[in-house]
Amino acid sequence: MKLLRTTDVDFEKGFRRIVDDRREGAGDVAADVAAIISRVKAKGDVALSEYTQRFDDHQLTEDGDWRIDLADCAAAFEGLEPTLRDALVLAAERIRTYHESQRPTDRDEIDSAGVRLGARWRPVDAAGLYVPGGRAAYPSSLLMNAIPAKVAGVERLVVVTPTPKGQTNPLVLAAAHLAGVDEIWRVGGAQAVAALAYGTDRIRRVDVVTGPGNAWVAEAKRQLYGVVGIDMVAGPSEILVIADNKNDPDWIAADLLSQAEHDPDAQSILITDDEEFADQVADRIDVQCAMLSTRRTARASWDDHGVIVVVERLDQAIGLANRLAAEHVELAVNDTAPFLDGIRHAGSMFIGRMAPEAVGDYVAGPNHVLPTGRRARFSSGLSVIDFMKRTSFIEMNHNSLAVIGPAAAALAHAEGLPAHANSIEVRLK
Amino acid sequence: MKLLRTTDVDFEKGFRRIVDDRREGAGDVAADVAAIISRVKAKGDVALSEYTQRFDDHQLTEDGDWRIDLADCAAAFEGLEPTLRDALVLAAERIRTYHESQRPTDRDEIDSAGVRLGARWRPVDAAGLYVPGGRAAYPSSLLMNAIPAKVAGVERLVVVTPTPKGQTNPLVLAAAHLAGVDEIWRVGGAQAVAALAYGTDRIRRVDVVTGPGNAWVAEAKRQLYGVVGIDMVAGPSEILVIADNKNDPDWIAADLLSQAEHDPDAQSILITDDEEFADQVADRIDVQCAMLSTRRTARASWDDHGVIVVVERLDQAIGLANRLAAEHVELAVNDTAPFLDGIRHAGSMFIGRMAPEAVGDYVAGPNHVLPTGRRARFSSGLSVIDFMKRTSFIEMNHNSLAVIGPAAAALAHAEGLPAHANSIEVRLK
Repeated sequence: MKLLRTTDVDFEKGFRRIVDDRREGAGDVAADVAAIISRVKAKGDVALSEYTQRFDDHQLTEDGDWRIDLADCAAAFEGLEPTLRDALVLAAERIRTYHESQRPTDRDEIDSAGVRLGARWRPVDAAGLYVPGGRAAYPSSLLMNAIPAKVAGVERLVVVTPTPKGQTNPLVLAAAHLAGVDEIWRVGGAQAVAALAYGTDRIRRVDVVTGPGNAWVAEAKRQLYGVVGIDMVAGPSEILVIADNKNDPDWIAADLLSQAEHDPDAQSILITDDEEFADQVADRIDVQCAMLSTRRTARASWDDHGVIVVVERLDQAIGLANRLAAEHVELAVNDTAPFLDGIRHAGSMFIGRMAPEAVGDYVAGPNHVLPTGRRARFSSGLSVIDFMKRTSFIEMNHNSLAVIGPAAAALAHAEGLPAHANSIEVRLK
Repeated sequence: MKLLRTTDVDFEKGFRRIVDDRREGAGDVAADVAAIISRVKAKGDVALSEYTQRFDDHQLTEDGDWRIDLADCAAAFEGLEPTLRDALVLAAERIRTYHESQRPTDRDEIDSAGVRLGARWRPVDAAGLYVPGGRAAYPSSLLMNAIPAKVAGVERLVVVTPTPKGQTNPLVLAAAHLAGVDEIWRVGGAQAVAALAYGTDRIRRVDVVTGPGNAWVAEAKRQLYGVVGIDMVAGPSEILVIADNKNDPDWIAADLLSQAEHDPDAQSILITDDEEFADQVADRIDVQCAMLSTRRTARASWDDHGVIVVVERLDQAIGLANRLAAEHVELAVNDTAPFLDGIRHAGSMFIGRMAPEAVGDYVAGPNHVLPTGRRARFSSGLSVIDFMKRTSFIEMNHNSLAVIGPAAAALAHAEGLPAHANSIEVRLK
């Protein structure tokens, strides 16, 4: 953990290093991923089968090796312990309700020149959702990706997920049932993303690929961006907690650890105006961390990437927060309004002392897929719009073309595009 | 030009080839672009100066070599021939009016559990706009990129544009004045995009880069996606005209040529239900093309990429159009409603016989930056939203946390994330 004080002479240098540190993880996999993609594009299912044998120790032979039966998902859901099932249902309902309000509205109007102008939103035909296997197989992520797609109206929602040695995760299957997933394929890695983008004999291609994954999956999405739509280039998770000394240090420590336990590359940052309080939080982190089953990950993250910034006045946190553009920002202060107002760059904000970020990960309703690595400067969390696209339209008759056409023709001539001008002039002759 | 008939036995094979042909142009520049980007990142202005000397034959020494004075833009605007100035003003006004309706609305509500949920849109701090030099230096593109950024509320709008041998384009300067551009730098190519993404001593970094460019510029945007936001990966322009035999063949020929004259890789496709009409259009294309100053480009495009599809019934065009997912779709038929309704994938649609696509390029109002290369399946034209980002927020008190917190904690435990659960439980103890 790094401790910075705004009163230190080298504060600016140290803080800038934190802002510039992108923590993109896992080195250079671009060449490997490019090779996998081109092999899947050329060989289709044969390549998928080879890679799945090699990377997941799972043989794709019979139909049942390739796909998970939707009936198995329904059974997994029914088999859940009731408290857990209720929690999953509550999460799905709240996520659905929040996202339903994101549906964009169409427009269709006739302006003063008599030109009909509009825009129309339609869902993509098919979306692919990557669900990691192993440690990061989170049913909550499945809900957060699948429900916006279904709210958008996507008719075909395809999950790909690696099943190492054939093993599946019942919680993920239950979530797939609850979210209304249409197909689940037992493939993962860059090869699964390539299959979704180009299609194979078995797996029809999709239009958009979303969902978290390791460095290979992230790089495959980046390389295939343009062939398909993607949600975003995601990096390790991060939280910024802005807290005064009126908080219980145990609460703030718990919040910082909740990010740290995700990933050794995750980052937890505390900004406070009281160094004694900061010390108390750091102590409580040590105590709590020791008791966590995730302590190795949490410890590594906090040791390597944790930061405490001590400011003279808490309002200095606003400017620093804008430079950090963090994925999650908690405002654990009395008067939250100036912070809510002043912080322009954040993926999601958690307001007040009773709003731990973890609630947003599961049941609050807004999406937990959020921009990381300072990308909240220019990008937004996953939403219904990511599964839709807009078509604009223009209708004219002779009169309206006569009003605005000549200006278009003049500009076309000026740009050296006579055929553009001609397509207007020939109609107005 | 290729002629396909749906009644041909190998129609499906021929049509699929057209759908799969991505016409991405200009081969493999990825390695060159990566080298340029890393050099600009390391050396900043020194690298910019070297590349600008080498590629644009323009020396960057004095401040005036680096920047174009905004006063020069104002002078260029005042110096325009009045008809042209009026046309540019009309275009800017109509584009601004259309885009003003795209501003997203914030939300802020308290739900039945007592949880305050919302989302807030803010503009990015700074946007960079690439404006090509030479043949493709279009003032209309400057307006189409700059005005949405200004409508979004972007405070710093930076143009980069190559000025080969120091030459500038007065029409582009005039458009920059009209659109309210804040800085104009005389750099271009991949090096200009890298400077916008990482910043140099002279050019502060921006958050989003948009605008058209050659293969180097497009590849630089692709490689820097994630470091900055970008508008899209754009390819050559394309038009699909659906026309019955009641159209004047000269009008339809003019529309097809208006795409073809953009770029030898552009694509014009006609779908009609009357082969005799198709022949007439093809003849008129030959006649009109010979008279164009852009005939070499238009001819190459039509010869290499032009397509006429003859269908038995015009409603077959709907399914074909959805597979083509074209940038521009013209509906030159009597009853446009079934087509408007049935065609789900298109960048922009032009409705009726009096709506030539060229009007949309300049003055109609909707953006002319549209998805190409079948990307209308999953992406949309440029809009105000591309220059904004959304921050979600969640506020709870003890009561509302008590309502939804336990479900979140249960899910966190099930996902093996005890620190997540603890951050909730510690507050509810």
